[in-house]
Amino acid sequence: MFRNFKMVSQVVFGRGCFNQLDEILSFQRVKSSSFVVFLVDHVFENSEFKSRIPAHDQDMIIWADTDDEPKTSYVDKLVEKVKSFSSDLPAGVVGIGGGSAMDLAKAVSLMLANPGSAADYQGWDLIKKPAVWHAAVPTLSGTGAEVSRTTVLTGPQKKLGINSDYTVFDQIVLDPELIAGVPKEQWFYTGMDCYIHCVESLQGTFLNAFSQSYGEKSMDLCREVFLQDPSDSADKLMMASYFGGMSIAYSQVGICHALSYGLSFVLGLHHGIGNSVAFDYLEEYYPEGVREFRQMMEKHEIMLPRNLVSGLSDEKLEKMIDVALVLSPLWENALGKDWAEIMTRDKIRQLYQRM
Amino acid sequence: MFRNFKMVSQVVFGRGCFNQLDEILSFQRVKSSSFVVFLVDHVFENSEFKSRIPAHDQDMIIWADTDDEPKTSYVDKLVEKVKSFSSDLPAGVVGIGGGSAMDLAKAVSLMLANPGSAADYQGWDLIKKPAVWHAAVPTLSGTGAEVSRTTVLTGPQKKLGINSDYTVFDQIVLDPELIAGVPKEQWFYTGMDCYIHCVESLQGTFLNAFSQSYGEKSMDLCREVFLQDPSDSADKLMMASYFGGMSIAYSQVGICHALSYGLSFVLGLHHGIGNSVAFDYLEEYYPEGVREFRQMMEKHEIMLPRNLVSGLSDEKLEKMIDVALVLSPLWENALGKDWAEIMTRDKIRQLYQRM
Repeated sequence: MFRNFKMVSQVVFGRGCFNQLDEILSFQRVKSSSFVVFLVDHVFENSEFKSRIPAHDQDMIIWADTDDEPKTSYVDKLVEKVKSFSSDLPAGVVGIGGGSAMDLAKAVSLMLANPGSAADYQGWDLIKKPAVWHAAVPTLSGTGAEVSRTTVLTGPQKKLGINSDYTVFDQIVLDPELIAGVPKEQWFYTGMDCYIHCVESLQGTFLNAFSQSYGEKSMDLCREVFLQDPSDSADKLMMASYFGGMSIAYSQVGICHALSYGLSFVLGLHHGIGNSVAFDYLEEYYPEGVREFRQMMEKHEIMLPRNLVSGLSDEKLEKMIDVALVLSPLWENALGKDWAEIMTRDKIRQLYQRM
Repeated sequence: MFRNFKMVSQVVFGRGCFNQLDEILSFQRVKSSSFVVFLVDHVFENSEFKSRIPAHDQDMIIWADTDDEPKTSYVDKLVEKVKSFSSDLPAGVVGIGGGSAMDLAKAVSLMLANPGSAADYQGWDLIKKPAVWHAAVPTLSGTGAEVSRTTVLTGPQKKLGINSDYTVFDQIVLDPELIAGVPKEQWFYTGMDCYIHCVESLQGTFLNAFSQSYGEKSMDLCREVFLQDPSDSADKLMMASYFGGMSIAYSQVGICHALSYGLSFVLGLHHGIGNSVAFDYLEEYYPEGVREFRQMMEKHEIMLPRNLVSGLSDEKLEKMIDVALVLSPLWENALGKDWAEIMTRDKIRQLYQRM
């Protein structure tokens, strides 16, 4: 059985295409009272960009707190907020920002249509009803959240995505101009999410020609962006992220992402930086990828944080290992069916203790 | 304004995934009486493959005549056939075959939902109502018809596609096993449709990073398939075709396709072979592409037909030029806004007379 992969329904790509968002939304506003929820990264609350958001009088703007990685409890709070704003469902939910804002928009649009807490749906294909129409406008590229069928959430027990066909965006607006002003470290770490993603997917056991074609091109684009500084770097990084996300259709990420989830859960480390921290210790598994990653770090003068785990209590360290071990598809992709014999708790502990 | 590109909703890719078609169709059969129209290339009528088509008792199999390129009159005939089969609309139309069968399935699903003749809709965005749900199962790769927003038809006056968001398939089933048995010449010419498509798109004036990323990877895959014979050649050709089709989102084909349309209209030449015939005389415009194309021909011992136009009447030659000249977006992509000053009737006549 091969996954019948759900794709984003519509994509617009081009410098300045953000200006088309109002027109795109007009097709969703079927009644004059139809309202749209803009879920926007709070970094834009006091920026010039704020005035470009095409919100009508009846619309709702939520400035999404992205200081922490998205939590299921925060999703539940946002859903309550939208429900108390209107007894009708919104005509659409638009996530504007990086991976966190996009994942929040996905989760809110799903949870507006499904009962209970977001934590109830962390896993694979647990969502039963289609989400409210939802769109993404990335202002940061690398996570692949714009095309993926997951929204990664930290719940009370675990960091795990709501993986579902209904999670996929109905519309994405890819405007390379919007990712131009990202601070260097954030640009780098988010880009490395994509690069590492490709290394893990291309070296994994799940790969087929569909995912390989997307993964290889994404990696080529990452190399161009992070080693050669092309003039259309933003355009290429945006495509690298999109292709990297698509490459996951018939593949999976691997060891680095599994370890990074543990780092995020226990230390609150953001996903991009968590990946970079973990990847630097994985030369045993991804020798060429780690070598090239270090070249990219050197070129952009990135200093990774060190000694994050050394002072940690045993209890927290063991929790970190628990969180990483939950992600069996990632381990299986990286190490094959017998992964559990290779990647023991001891081995994971040793890896974490070096970080 | 950038096109808000409509994508295929669902894609399944993998060796043997054709076996999942019955299950996929079950989601479309909402009533027990729901019927599906299978529009299958007639080459399969007496093949073993016939028994693998998951037709239920109430379904309709149409063996599509693909000896000629799809005509608007043939589409109208097929639509009548489906309408007289049942007063209900089918739950789905499934095209199984190469570009012709897929284009016929697109056109029939559109014309079941829209009044008049298919010829009324040749052009851009003339279709008003959504098509019947439609799916494609390519058994030949290269045209990109599986992802494109057009169905190319020969009408009474012109060869021109029905270009519309509604034309796009709802589902594609990409099973590389199905393209394994294609005769060499057909395999080559259809693959060259994809290769030439990439040359024209990548060298065109309309290109952006979205189309470039898809076009470059498609071309890499074509090079691998036609110059290196990889072990997973069928999988890669299938992906080359898909990526080639996607690259057209923000680009266009060019001179070769425009000339090829004229050859098809007047001489009835199939699209793939028409492209190859025309491309061989375009070294002035696509020097590197034509050189590499000739390497591919040599490697696979392909002999192009020659002297196709020399004996033609003036009237037919002028009609050929008319058909080619209609395709202004193709000429503009290739030669810029002032294309009409460069590509005069005389110039086109000279090119055709060499073929």
